[in-house]
Amino acid sequence: IRTGDAERLRSLVGDLHEADLGELLEALDADDRPGLVELLGDQFDFTALTEVDESVRLQLLESLPTDVTVEGLRELDSDDAVYILEDMEAEDRQEILERLPLPERAALTRSLDFPEETAGRRMQTDFVAVPPFWTAGRTIDYLREMKDAPETFYEVYVIDPAFKLLGTVPLDMLLRSPREARLESILKDEVREVAATEDQEEAGRLFQRYNLVSAPVTDEAGRLVGVLTVDDIVDVIHQEADEDIKALAGVGDEELSDTVFQTARGRFPWLLVNLLTAFLAASVIGLFEGTIEQMVALAVLMPIVASMGGNAGTQAMTVTVRALAMRELGRRNVRRIIAREVLVGLVNGVSLAMVLGAGAGLWFRNLDLGVVIATALIVNMLVAGLFGTLVPLSINKLKLDPAVASGVFVTTVTDVIGFFAFLGLATWWFGFL
Amino acid sequence: IRTGDAERLRSLVGDLHEADLGELLEALDADDRPGLVELLGDQFDFTALTEVDESVRLQLLESLPTDVTVEGLRELDSDDAVYILEDMEAEDRQEILERLPLPERAALTRSLDFPEETAGRRMQTDFVAVPPFWTAGRTIDYLREMKDAPETFYEVYVIDPAFKLLGTVPLDMLLRSPREARLESILKDEVREVAATEDQEEAGRLFQRYNLVSAPVTDEAGRLVGVLTVDDIVDVIHQEADEDIKALAGVGDEELSDTVFQTARGRFPWLLVNLLTAFLAASVIGLFEGTIEQMVALAVLMPIVASMGGNAGTQAMTVTVRALAMRELGRRNVRRIIAREVLVGLVNGVSLAMVLGAGAGLWFRNLDLGVVIATALIVNMLVAGLFGTLVPLSINKLKLDPAVASGVFVTTVTDVIGFFAFLGLATWWFGFL
Repeated sequence: IRTGDAERLRSLVGDLHEADLGELLEALDADDRPGLVELLGDQFDFTALTEVDESVRLQLLESLPTDVTVEGLRELDSDDAVYILEDMEAEDRQEILERLPLPERAALTRSLDFPEETAGRRMQTDFVAVPPFWTAGRTIDYLREMKDAPETFYEVYVIDPAFKLLGTVPLDMLLRSPREARLESILKDEVREVAATEDQEEAGRLFQRYNLVSAPVTDEAGRLVGVLTVDDIVDVIHQEADEDIKALAGVGDEELSDTVFQTARGRFPWLLVNLLTAFLAASVIGLFEGTIEQMVALAVLMPIVASMGGNAGTQAMTVTVRALAMRELGRRNVRRIIAREVLVGLVNGVSLAMVLGAGAGLWFRNLDLGVVIATALIVNMLVAGLFGTLVPLSINKLKLDPAVASGVFVTTVTDVIGFFAFLGLATWWFGFL
Repeated sequence: IRTGDAERLRSLVGDLHEADLGELLEALDADDRPGLVELLGDQFDFTALTEVDESVRLQLLESLPTDVTVEGLRELDSDDAVYILEDMEAEDRQEILERLPLPERAALTRSLDFPEETAGRRMQTDFVAVPPFWTAGRTIDYLREMKDAPETFYEVYVIDPAFKLLGTVPLDMLLRSPREARLESILKDEVREVAATEDQEEAGRLFQRYNLVSAPVTDEAGRLVGVLTVDDIVDVIHQEADEDIKALAGVGDEELSDTVFQTARGRFPWLLVNLLTAFLAASVIGLFEGTIEQMVALAVLMPIVASMGGNAGTQAMTVTVRALAMRELGRRNVRRIIAREVLVGLVNGVSLAMVLGAGAGLWFRNLDLGVVIATALIVNMLVAGLFGTLVPLSINKLKLDPAVASGVFVTTVTDVIGFFAFLGLATWWFGFL
């Protein structure tokens, strides 16, 4: 189909929603993508670019002529334009910005000046702001005549002459008020503002907590500079949860469209760290070579103790990491949670130790071996509960992301303690000293 | 403070947002919670109950007199009332429903009749629906006079006499249209409807994909029965991501306020499964007791191979589980992803094998041992890439949740193959047959 029939193509894909158009782009061969955009001409909605993977977006933007991109970006809401621009090379971005008309360039530059992943980057700079002495009727008339209103909006902002925010009037409130009501009498002054420099994750939590649909963004001087809307926040929430899941597994910021080498490189660092910590655990086993030589059954059984501790530690750690991410863990309950996790380790440790002890004792027809492994398991499960909470809490205290590094530390601890407790106890019990 | 000074209490907490009030409730001792609600009387906003953990909510509802609860629920939006009612004992719920006036009872009963976690359960049953021949002006006047309008809304729904949905008019569109414009001429007829029986997760994906703020919910006959709003969807998205994270770690549906025994019971099943699979891995080691007796170094090194495979497998699995959850994996790209993961295993396997082989060879001053462990690692990393993708894909094919069970299977495979490849290869290489 991609051999030039622009007419037919337009009728086929012209009506697609941006999300579907984005999916179509991703499904196409890389070489066909620029062709699709150029054939569609001004019928191509650049919003679709916010819906595709970063690698697809960058590849496409590079192969498009600059003026097609400039035209496309002019049509966009400012937050979508920033989303597309922020990942480009500084040089290309500059070239595009220079070709945009001054007001748009100024707005985009200001958004881009805020650090990555802040509210300022995600905000929409078109919004409706009116003075407090206007009436509901006048505001509605103003909206009817407004030319460059944002694509969609849910609130009207009431500001003073210095652009300070006085309050908001949700549209349903505006519609339900009599025409002659002055905005100052109907506005909601208990507004949840977001500072432009605030982290987007923090803003997401605010939206979630207070069930917001949009929130005003203010600069250091308290002036209204933009609006955050919930559709961007939904993406932020999803992205942050996704980052947490991947970080817990030691997977970096990778996308499904990444190549083998990009993927391998992204995952290598944590595997290397794991290799080094595995050497550490192995060296603990090395301490007991003599014991193992005399009783090979120990080598057969020791991975069980380590693996159980690793699993229990991961459970406690995951719960702690999530509670930290959702700001549910504070001074108020941190002691209770640590105590709970240690006790959970004890409870499950004791019940599983009975199963494991009986199994191992029967297998090797050696009751003592069953007692030793059961005791080692209880010790390791207690340690797993303790370090499963302490490790992420400590990493969080250091202002680092507990999701990223906790896993390796926790399993290292449970491996080392698991091997040490089991082999050490066996050495002592069976008198192999 | 909780010794009865209602006046003072009201002035202190009367103005709190429901989310903050919920947090206050959770922070209080269980015994003080009903007191707070009764002292606040009609100033207590029952919406706060939707913001607390399930155990807190149930405990509180049980200790409140039924008529306080009934009064409180009457004030709520229908979706919040359903949220509170759905977790109660059937008997108590019936008692409360019977005391509610008929129209509210009917609406709540209908919502509760839909299965759990569907759009019908989450929807709000108050909405604004008008006929297509009304003008924008008449609609605005109707909204001004409406008494029982929903608390907030973002769209007006246009319906035919049979309650079939014809289209939606977003409020900003309504405001920007001339008063005399007929709704049928301004409505958006490309509406993303949600079936009442649809899974809430599916609805969440729709909201995210098309950046929706609200969506109409229709019954089997295509009649408009309610509205889903984005604030509920944000909670759904968060909850689903949270479930995935916890499921991957083998943690059930637990909350921070759960007791030690609730938590331990929830985590026990997967630990028990892990214990059984660990016995399986141990029995593989048992096959090679003779080899280990002759060369204890093997016992020291073998956990390294298993642990590296487990990590690499978890990485591949996590990426696959997430891609499945976000519907990014389909027939179109599944072969590419499997191939990619196997190749990533190969690439990282080869580079890490060199480090591991050199390290092990030097440690035990045995070059052959280095070659054997390096080869075993490459094999296990390939297997990890393959099974890290195949296991979740197969579980997904069986219409089960891949996040729940994948972890155990993948690490079992990497443990078994890791031990078998390393010990088997060593047995053959060193001629211990």
